[in-house]
Amino acid sequence: MHVSLEQAEKAIAAAVAESERLGTQMCIAVVDSGADLKAFTRMNGAWVGSIDIAIKKAKTACFFGMNTGQIGQLSQPGGPLYGIEHSNQGLITFPGGVPIVDQDGVLIGAVGVSGSSVENDHQVAKAAAESIGLSDLPSHPWRT
Amino acid sequence: MHVSLEQAEKAIAAAVAESERLGTQMCIAVVDSGADLKAFTRMNGAWVGSIDIAIKKAKTACFFGMNTGQIGQLSQPGGPLYGIEHSNQGLITFPGGVPIVDQDGVLIGAVGVSGSSVENDHQVAKAAAESIGLSDLPSHPWRT
Amino acid sequence: MHVSLEQAEKAIAAAVAESERLGTQMCIAVVDSGADLKAFTRMNGAWVGSIDIAIKKAKTACFFGMNTGQIGQLSQPGGPLYGIEHSNQGLITFPGGVPIVDQDGVLIGAVGVSGSSVENDHQVAKAAAESIGLSDLPSHPWRT
Amino acid sequence: MHVSLEQAEKAIAAAVAESERLGTQMCIAVVDSGADLKAFTRMNGAWVGSIDIAIKKAKTACFFGMNTGQIGQLSQPGGPLYGIEHSNQGLITFPGGVPIVDQDGVLIGAVGVSGSSVENDHQVAKAAAESIGLSDLPSHPWRT
Repeated sequence: MHVSLEQAEKAIAAAVAESERLGTQMCIAVVDSGADLKAFTRMNGAWVGSIDIAIKKAKTACFFGMNTGQIGQLSQPGGPLYGIEHSNQGLITFPGGVPIVDQDGVLIGAVGVSGSSVENDHQVAKAAAESIGLSDLPSHPWRT
Repeated sequence: MHVSLEQAEKAIAAAVAESERLGTQMCIAVVDSGADLKAFTRMNGAWVGSIDIAIKKAKTACFFGMNTGQIGQLSQPGGPLYGIEHSNQGLITFPGGVPIVDQDGVLIGAVGVSGSSVENDHQVAKAAAESIGLSDLPSHPWRT
Repeated sequence: MHVSLEQAEKAIAAAVAESERLGTQMCIAVVDSGADLKAFTRMNGAWVGSIDIAIKKAKTACFFGMNTGQIGQLSQPGGPLYGIEHSNQGLITFPGGVPIVDQDGVLIGAVGVSGSSVENDHQVAKAAAESIGLSDLPSHPWRT
Repeated sequence: MHVSLEQAEKAIAAAVAESERLGTQMCIAVVDSGADLKAFTRMNGAWVGSIDIAIKKAKTACFFGMNTGQIGQLSQPGGPLYGIEHSNQGLITFPGGVPIVDQDGVLIGAVGVSGSSVENDHQVAKAAAESIGLSDLPSHPWRT
């Protein structure tokens, strides 16, 4: 199952609203369950460098069905996934990417947010995902 | 000058409306005058392969301030720009990318559309650009 | 707003002069506010490997409107931005890239310098930026 | 032997002068005999898409010691070098890149110009090369 455009637009609207509450300027990307871009918005004043980071966060969260920050904990020097960022044409493994899961526990896409602190990025991404579903997947293997 | 998010959203809404009139499913990308992605929408049912094409069409139209199809006429075998597609990490030089120009003749961004015939792609991109400005630049050099 | 060629040339001349005072051989890149290359100079004897580093430092400083070294402090193992270098086709996050800001606090471009110690690289980049403007942005969001 | 910075600057000044005579806005790249960037200038108003094309033209002319347009004649469909543009991370094989040869017939670098018609691009590149040497190499093998 894939996130629909209507859902993606709702998620982005929720992200923009949360970002404005925080006083931040974000890039927000929504990918479907194939990790392919569905919708993207760069708020006025957001960093140009955040375009690619937001998209890569969304892809990374979708590729592995988990928050990007969880992968980053495993990819540190000495960790089991050290260097995983070199795969898939570049992953981003710090917080700001979260899966989007429907009511049946099926991964339907992911959101990636970049433009502020990683705490704010994560909060905005979570608000986006939860506007249209859940942001936690049941344990792997999940269904797509 | 850069296209604002409000303008980009208006352009995408116009593109979606025109696409629905044509009965097509499109990917629509808007870039600013630096050719950096501002907003993107993939309509339900649009080809996944059109994501990258729409973005590259928008960038190509911005890079050279002209419709992508005009470049494609020059880049055919035997033509003066044969092979230009190998530059800038990949150009798309068939129709569907058009510049966005403001009332003062300043390039403020570009739209790229992919998902149907090139005639439809161009028509949708033109409708998007003209919803917020013009789609023709004064002769080069223009101001950005 | 974009740095003009006249400004870029003045910045490079200042960088070369500072580099000669330090007895170093530098690569110096100036990008505009869209992070696109405006001017580049490789001094005689500078490392060939510094060409790409200087350009990437300038782009990195422009992408995020801050000194590259500030990003590097956040991207260390265990830091909040660990692995950010994998975005945007490769960032360089050690010192030597600085934004160029005009008198109104608007980001107009950035300078990247590579060829000596990071302290020297930064000092030369700062001299370049300050020959035509400021090297500090007001707090984000800034205008471009 | 490599083109010196002083020579590269002289070549770029000649290119800018010739470009102004033609009423065009150019990107001008000079590479050394290793095809590594030595100096680059983007004139005000030049296409952003020409940055990469100018650099690739200079590299292409240096890689093979001939005008880019000569390679383009061989890389057409059915020609002996069809598809050569896919090598070396992207070649540009239409006119605008010319070798720089010293008085002893040694290749010391190349100039690439992009921003107008290919005839103008070539004329400006030739003016640049000839301001500091010759633009024709003796027959291969030449010395570097």
